[in-house]
Amino acid sequence: MESLTTEEGNSNGGGGGGGFLANCREQLRWALDRLIISSRGTAVGFVGKLAKIARDDPRRVAHSLKVGLALTLVSVLYYVTPLFNGWGDSVIWAVITVVVVMEFTVGGTLSRGLNRTIATLVAGFLAIAAHMAANLCGEKGEPILLGVFVFLVGSAATFSRFIPELKARYDYGVMIFILTFTMVAVSSYRVDELLEFAHERLTTVAVGVTICLFTTVFVFPIWAGEDLHNLAADSLEKLAEFLEGMESECFRENSPCENLEGKAFLQVYKGVLNSKVREDSLCTFAKWEPIHGKFRFRHPWGQYQKLGALCRQCASSMEALASCVVVLKKSQYPEANPELCLKLRGTCGAMSLHSAKALRGLSLAVRTMTLPCQTNDMSTAAKAASDFRTQLSEDAALLQVMHVAVVASLLSDVVIQIERITESTSKLARLARFTNPERPPSAVVINVED
Amino acid sequence: MESLTTEEGNSNGGGGGGGFLANCREQLRWALDRLIISSRGTAVGFVGKLAKIARDDPRRVAHSLKVGLALTLVSVLYYVTPLFNGWGDSVIWAVITVVVVMEFTVGGTLSRGLNRTIATLVAGFLAIAAHMAANLCGEKGEPILLGVFVFLVGSAATFSRFIPELKARYDYGVMIFILTFTMVAVSSYRVDELLEFAHERLTTVAVGVTICLFTTVFVFPIWAGEDLHNLAADSLEKLAEFLEGMESECFRENSPCENLEGKAFLQVYKGVLNSKVREDSLCTFAKWEPIHGKFRFRHPWGQYQKLGALCRQCASSMEALASCVVVLKKSQYPEANPELCLKLRGTCGAMSLHSAKALRGLSLAVRTMTLPCQTNDMSTAAKAASDFRTQLSEDAALLQVMHVAVVASLLSDVVIQIERITESTSKLARLARFTNPERPPSAVVINVED
Repeated sequence: MESLTTEEGNSNGGGGGGGFLANCREQLRWALDRLIISSRGTAVGFVGKLAKIARDDPRRVAHSLKVGLALTLVSVLYYVTPLFNGWGDSVIWAVITVVVVMEFTVGGTLSRGLNRTIATLVAGFLAIAAHMAANLCGEKGEPILLGVFVFLVGSAATFSRFIPELKARYDYGVMIFILTFTMVAVSSYRVDELLEFAHERLTTVAVGVTICLFTTVFVFPIWAGEDLHNLAADSLEKLAEFLEGMESECFRENSPCENLEGKAFLQVYKGVLNSKVREDSLCTFAKWEPIHGKFRFRHPWGQYQKLGALCRQCASSMEALASCVVVLKKSQYPEANPELCLKLRGTCGAMSLHSAKALRGLSLAVRTMTLPCQTNDMSTAAKAASDFRTQLSEDAALLQVMHVAVVASLLSDVVIQIERITESTSKLARLARFTNPERPPSAVVINVED
Repeated sequence: MESLTTEEGNSNGGGGGGGFLANCREQLRWALDRLIISSRGTAVGFVGKLAKIARDDPRRVAHSLKVGLALTLVSVLYYVTPLFNGWGDSVIWAVITVVVVMEFTVGGTLSRGLNRTIATLVAGFLAIAAHMAANLCGEKGEPILLGVFVFLVGSAATFSRFIPELKARYDYGVMIFILTFTMVAVSSYRVDELLEFAHERLTTVAVGVTICLFTTVFVFPIWAGEDLHNLAADSLEKLAEFLEGMESECFRENSPCENLEGKAFLQVYKGVLNSKVREDSLCTFAKWEPIHGKFRFRHPWGQYQKLGALCRQCASSMEALASCVVVLKKSQYPEANPELCLKLRGTCGAMSLHSAKALRGLSLAVRTMTLPCQTNDMSTAAKAASDFRTQLSEDAALLQVMHVAVVASLLSDVVIQIERITESTSKLARLARFTNPERPPSAVVINVED
């Protein structure tokens, strides 16, 4: 860019020999070429990213096209004169409804659509009642009373959005309630045919919701319930994958003694740990959905949340296990007690293998919606676990020392993490330019206790 | 309710003696009384719940009143005739803007307000360009071309909402872009003065955003940045509280030997574990906020996310520690190796106490925005941790056995959790009426390997 400025300056000044100009042109061409290449690289990277998003879940493309379709359908209301004359400008509400109601899943669209329709209906009635009450107060009192109503209803409804149960399922409805109430109430001061105005808003919103529902349910439907169901099966499979990896990499006789950090199977449980938000929203939406596919009326959607909570707890234990195993593999001790170690290794192998098999079976059962096969994998794993406990409890001294040492060992891990936290806080203090304390009051108080 | 029906039936039939009627009336009164008492109980409970929501964070009440105030302010546009005549019906956009843009924090409102204004501006220009292009195609071609434009722009913009970076900060803007583009483009077929229509929409949206910003910034402002800052200090404090509880309840010489399950300090880290979603949204909003209070321009908001991630990891280790400690306290072993246990107990006590002190110091430093005091708590804790490691490594046999035993012990915890998962899945299968598998294909395949 600097060469560009130079050239411009020179041209303006009218100076500079032919050789110099040629040189500058050369540089300019080079800079342009580089710009084109780098922007082409950026564009290719961006397209690649878009392609990946589409490949990861092709239903995203379907959803985008469905939104386009719904918008085109609703805009037909404008182009067809008889339809337009029926509603006039209010058709705009149908367009807005389509944009804000179309969600990725059928349940999401249904939830928003019903919230919107019912909230519009209720708020419309209330607003007309408020208008009638305000009308009684004469021309001067009307705007004042309307203002008071809007203030009170707006504040109360906004506060109700902090109630957790309401927020989870009806937050959007309350927002639309505030919107419609304010709109109809304040319009009542200017619009003569208030009933018609409210009626037009309600019917156009209903038309918009109908178009959305038609598009989501009949064109390539994406069901939240199905997603929730598959999420449960996926979680079970991920837990199984972790245990299979443990068995083959750590507990087999011929398992490689290499460093485990960075192995894929040690990361697989992390996807399960962070599933709560997605699971909760899918469950909320699934409850709105009608019967579809293999899911009957009153399908136990809440049970998936319970199963998910257990899976996350298991994944959290696996996290502790993973860090222990990495430490164990890193520090190659001399085999001080080969007999016990071999025994424990066998026990661990059996626990992992059979638990993994049981999990695979459960995942298959959920995926195919068949009853879980009665295998004895889980009882074998449980027996190995209780055997291990019995072995340990036979040696009370070892058991006690072990437990105390485990606590101390975990605690020393916590200490290491707190050291990292200290560093991070110091970095924050530096970046945010924390001031020097005038006198360290509480540090002194604490040290007295020491 | 049954007695009610009976009485009504009797009255209609005209039968029934005086005594029977009196009896019915008595029953009716009793039922009514009960209804009043129970609904009074429900109402009292509901009011108590609302009071608790308000007490937990009084800023919620302030926010609700602010929304009411902003709505009243915007409705003045309707009541004052000169203002109304300038915009006419388009004033409705200002009302809608206030309802959808007002957020709890200043950053949230700013983010939504700017998203809305800029998206409206860009979409308005594009829609006018689309209208001009469509106009060239004659009267018959216009609606077709407009439909094609709406379909393409709607689909492309919807797909762009799946890009994670865009979704995090500009999701609302893209939605408003689709909304405005569709609205202006399809209206262009009916509205003659399109430029005026687009201009009115833009100015009324801007007025709405201005009223929102005025109310959020100047009336009792709630800053996302401040919340994020306090969240970091709270997390550090919670971690300290857990360690203090551990020290006093488990590692002191005179600590009570009772069952630890249900102790408050064993739950305190859970609040830290689930802070990610809130932290991320606060951080996004904080980045939009102007200089305020002690927070300067370019305050390192991202650093809070890093600190938060470390705190969550520490809390996750504490979870493993908590379950170990509960097991340890439950099974009162005979003191097989009193000397080692006493030594380890002392080490654990020192680690907990000094780490907790260091954390309290960090929390105080963050809260007061002063540089952390240079105490030697953290080095004392780290020394205790490394001493413990040295002690263990001197006894290589114990170290190895311990590590293997820890892995086995954690694994047997995992097995117990998988048993719970199995039960939960079976319950799901029963409730959702999973069918019997015709033949268990993969179970057979797996069993061959067994």
